[in-house]
Amino acid sequence: MHFENRSLSAHTTAGTDIIDITPLVREAVRDTRIRNGSVTLFIPGSTAALSTIEFESGVINDLKKAIERIAPRDIYYEHNERWADGNGYAHVRAALLGPSLHIPIVEGAMTLGTWQQIVLLDFDNRPRKRRIIFQALGEQK
Amino acid sequence: MHFENRSLSAHTTAGTDIIDITPLVREAVRDTRIRNGSVTLFIPGSTAALSTIEFESGVINDLKKAIERIAPRDIYYEHNERWADGNGYAHVRAALLGPSLHIPIVEGAMTLGTWQQIVLLDFDNRPRKRRIIFQALGEQK
Amino acid sequence: MHFENRSLSAHTTAGTDIIDITPLVREAVRDTRIRNGSVTLFIPGSTAALSTIEFESGVINDLKKAIERIAPRDIYYEHNERWADGNGYAHVRAALLGPSLHIPIVEGAMTLGTWQQIVLLDFDNRPRKRRIIFQALGEQK
Repeated sequence: MHFENRSLSAHTTAGTDIIDITPLVREAVRDTRIRNGSVTLFIPGSTAALSTIEFESGVINDLKKAIERIAPRDIYYEHNERWADGNGYAHVRAALLGPSLHIPIVEGAMTLGTWQQIVLLDFDNRPRKRRIIFQALGEQK
Repeated sequence: MHFENRSLSAHTTAGTDIIDITPLVREAVRDTRIRNGSVTLFIPGSTAALSTIEFESGVINDLKKAIERIAPRDIYYEHNERWADGNGYAHVRAALLGPSLHIPIVEGAMTLGTWQQIVLLDFDNRPRKRRIIFQALGEQK
Repeated sequence: MHFENRSLSAHTTAGTDIIDITPLVREAVRDTRIRNGSVTLFIPGSTAALSTIEFESGVINDLKKAIERIAPRDIYYEHNERWADGNGYAHVRAALLGPSLHIPIVEGAMTLGTWQQIVLLDFDNRPRKRRIIFQALGEQK
């Protein structure tokens, strides 16, 4: 079994930025030369999350609206009284969505559906450079 | 360490179909002969998700209602303008719930609670045959 | 590769109790002597979940309010007609949040962000002693 740790990085903009990190992850998977195994992704930080979705601008906007219904940006957050950064909404969103994701690798490729991309959701209210921990485990080619 | 990849399959109906896949997963776990390790499940596709719940028809209906509150089926979805399939709601629900699940195996059995079953949630608006990627890793008996 | 299974435990109070289990997990990680690998956590049971958040009382209250919006405690739950325990809301919340969490270990430490703690969310309506399955896999020091 081959095990590999990497750190990927991505730049995000303020507000709820949802970006497609599939190409980044796919390239890292290819580099590992793992034939059968899995990749785990984890985002350090408490104002971002990981998930999968069809990366199409219409449904990305639909997802943003759903998240806004669940944890609206402009309601009262107790967190904002403790800290001046005003991102209480971002913390709540991140805790609900979750920081980790696991994707199988079969015959050298991730088993994503045809219309399924890996996304980083950054809820913070300022641009960020995000680090994504990439771990791959499996049998190499 | 023994590693094994499998593909499980299940048929779902239209609408939000929530089905109990525990027997399917349990049988696959038994076949692996893993004593201590873990099983990871992943659903390829962007309109379905995996989770655990007590599989009792009352609470399954309660969960469906909660999901309907979060991402109602009949509100406006930008996604539905791009594609004629009308399942924008399904994509949003799947992204919020997440495609992967990890369950430990201890002494040959998954460590599920007594009232905790593994469910596949299919949000799509047509019947589907779903493939679930099953991966087990661990020490065999 | 070293693999290790453990059972951690924590006491929770009634209502939506969100507790910081980071010190518990960190101590277990240290004991494994794993340098590079990962830890997976799983909560058996259908009325609790795991996630990460900045463990600050303000944002914990904000998260509780968001969860109350998604699955209010005092609306009608069909589950409560089947069972007299009145915790239908707890089952729905747990299914939405999810029972498993995966955190990388790099250079002997979990790759949590500075303000990111691991939390157990217990939604049940009575105090519980919760068992958390801890699994670590990786290369030892």
